[in-house]
Amino acid sequence: MIANKMVGLVNNNSAIRMMFEEGKRLAAEFGAENVYDFSLGNPNVPAPAGLNTAIKEILDEEASTFVHGYMSNAGYEDVRETIAASLNKRFETSFTKDNIIMTVGAAGGLNVILKTLINPGDEVVAFAPYFLEYRSYINNYDGVLVEISPDTETFMPNLAEFEEKITPMTKAVIINNPNNPTGVVYSEEIIKKLAKIMDDKQKEFGTEIYLISDEPYRELAYDGVEVPYLTKYYDNTVVGYSFSKSLSLPGERIGYLVIPTEMPDYKNVFAAASIANRILGFVNAPSLIQRAVAKVIDEQTDIAYYNRNRELLYGSLKEYGFECIKPEGAFYLFVKSPVADEKEFCNKAKSYNILMVPGSSFACPGYVRIAYCVAYETIERSLPSFKKLAEEFGL
Amino acid sequence: MIANKMVGLVNNNSAIRMMFEEGKRLAAEFGAENVYDFSLGNPNVPAPAGLNTAIKEILDEEASTFVHGYMSNAGYEDVRETIAASLNKRFETSFTKDNIIMTVGAAGGLNVILKTLINPGDEVVAFAPYFLEYRSYINNYDGVLVEISPDTETFMPNLAEFEEKITPMTKAVIINNPNNPTGVVYSEEIIKKLAKIMDDKQKEFGTEIYLISDEPYRELAYDGVEVPYLTKYYDNTVVGYSFSKSLSLPGERIGYLVIPTEMPDYKNVFAAASIANRILGFVNAPSLIQRAVAKVIDEQTDIAYYNRNRELLYGSLKEYGFECIKPEGAFYLFVKSPVADEKEFCNKAKSYNILMVPGSSFACPGYVRIAYCVAYETIERSLPSFKKLAEEFGL
Repeated sequence: MIANKMVGLVNNNSAIRMMFEEGKRLAAEFGAENVYDFSLGNPNVPAPAGLNTAIKEILDEEASTFVHGYMSNAGYEDVRETIAASLNKRFETSFTKDNIIMTVGAAGGLNVILKTLINPGDEVVAFAPYFLEYRSYINNYDGVLVEISPDTETFMPNLAEFEEKITPMTKAVIINNPNNPTGVVYSEEIIKKLAKIMDDKQKEFGTEIYLISDEPYRELAYDGVEVPYLTKYYDNTVVGYSFSKSLSLPGERIGYLVIPTEMPDYKNVFAAASIANRILGFVNAPSLIQRAVAKVIDEQTDIAYYNRNRELLYGSLKEYGFECIKPEGAFYLFVKSPVADEKEFCNKAKSYNILMVPGSSFACPGYVRIAYCVAYETIERSLPSFKKLAEEFGL
Repeated sequence: MIANKMVGLVNNNSAIRMMFEEGKRLAAEFGAENVYDFSLGNPNVPAPAGLNTAIKEILDEEASTFVHGYMSNAGYEDVRETIAASLNKRFETSFTKDNIIMTVGAAGGLNVILKTLINPGDEVVAFAPYFLEYRSYINNYDGVLVEISPDTETFMPNLAEFEEKITPMTKAVIINNPNNPTGVVYSEEIIKKLAKIMDDKQKEFGTEIYLISDEPYRELAYDGVEVPYLTKYYDNTVVGYSFSKSLSLPGERIGYLVIPTEMPDYKNVFAAASIANRILGFVNAPSLIQRAVAKVIDEQTDIAYYNRNRELLYGSLKEYGFECIKPEGAFYLFVKSPVADEKEFCNKAKSYNILMVPGSSFACPGYVRIAYCVAYETIERSLPSFKKLAEEFGL
């Protein structure tokens, strides 16, 4: 008697989440140290020490009814001001608290902005490979996901196909930079081209087309690569940020939306997003953790840790004969499956207690995602199994 | 360019929330001590001291990647087990973790269960007066709210009208006990009658009709009154709980759903609700606060404080000539407006710096809601103004 929309989802639950549950089962059976669970983007690096200190200070110094109480649906004013100032310092923007809405993580933020913008039948463009939950988020508001096929040479957005697929029904475009699952970072040059296409199409159709930038991996970029800040290139940009990866807080559900004043319909979009935050049942982002992230806004996760993981796993897999783009950001490798059906490859890997996620969970079959946000020792211990796996597939 | 569904909401934002913002404005102008803000159910009683201690202990004793990390979408297993055990002890139920889904407050929980159950066009019954956000929650899934008119003598559910308005399209019934905004508590006798009507209608129509019990005020009952636990009376019950009022944590967004095994379609409903929690963008209830509430599961807020407020405000308003049912639960008075248009009354009250919410925000015009979860001193200071207000309306 569940809703029709839910039936398919129950029968075909998220492969990523099923792997996570499977990992817990295998760990119980074989011991956690003998399971190589690369399924979930659940950071193994602890939150910066300052975070827990900040929480304790807040509890000691601020009134319980304030710290644990309701605030404006958009979040505490001082927290939003702190975030705006931090962004301005880093990206030469000029945001104030009136550009920031605190959200229940990036997933909450994406739902808030889609609820704000999407009418049934509106089209939302995403570039494959993409995080498959986008489909569910868009479907929540009866939008239609329009998929741009992957460029498996570079995993950069296929801009020629993008230009063709924008229609008068296109209401939004989602990009995810640095990218999950490929780890590539879209350069300023690509962003400028993408913005130009969108600007031209807005004029051609007389519509507003929103660029939604999903940025949980913004702080995870290696080798000094720059991740462009999109509001500077396109006025109808909404940034969805999360502290899940940057401060290793995925369970806390804390992030924010940036809605720039330059957006032509800024006032309505900001007001509607604040209300959407409430009526979708979030009400507001969790209060104590809002205050805590503001206190450690300039702290960062241990990128060097992920970088060491990246170098070891990427180098080893290449050495064993696997094909893979070297990621410049995030904490994923997107590896070409040695057989066309990557689920077969995943199943074989599971027999070595290696858990990874099939590329079909990112609209890109023939590849697998390996999340290397695990302990370095896990990667070390997994290497002999990866080697045998490569041999088994004749690499 | 915002979505059509959002346009009306932006133009006619929640009166409760607008009062909250207005209260902050008045406090800045006149000083907080000269504003009597009875608009929002934002508890003035601090969280039990054990809560902050629990948070600090968790931060000291548990691994950062565990406390702040992802867990199953339904929540930490041990937290859910603790809650099940506490319910079993109190209500002679036999829940396990497999009956509990941790949610982003009760508002999150209601959205999760409505997403789980509602197809477009399905009817959801609510008894006026009710929390007006129900309309938005039901509208999120294109359900239709069917309103039962208020019994302004007793503010108990009008069961005769209820029986008439159940149709083959009725998918769910929401009750809120103890009730916001009236403070009445539905007795076991009433619950049994309501359950009997629903059972009979399920048989008559061959449908499943879910009883959704919204229970943020469960722990707030005065004079030893009992609040029945609904899963014992009706198998298709889902309980939505929140720690917002019971532990004074409204900003933290923490609650849970109870989905009993006795429910005929239990397995699908539980699975779908776990997925709905994820795809609506909650992903999971905030992690640290999940663990904290489990550690203080048997602590309670200071009911005596609210009771003292209740006695003072109720007694004084009656003395000044206002009409009002004496509430047995929650922390609201639902007072009859001395003029038919209660908004006129609210506006006049505002000229005395008294903020209250019009009954039309609860589908019950002609009344006003006064939230007495404020400082006792605020009530004391407000009384001369209430007295003048009564005189001004010739009471």
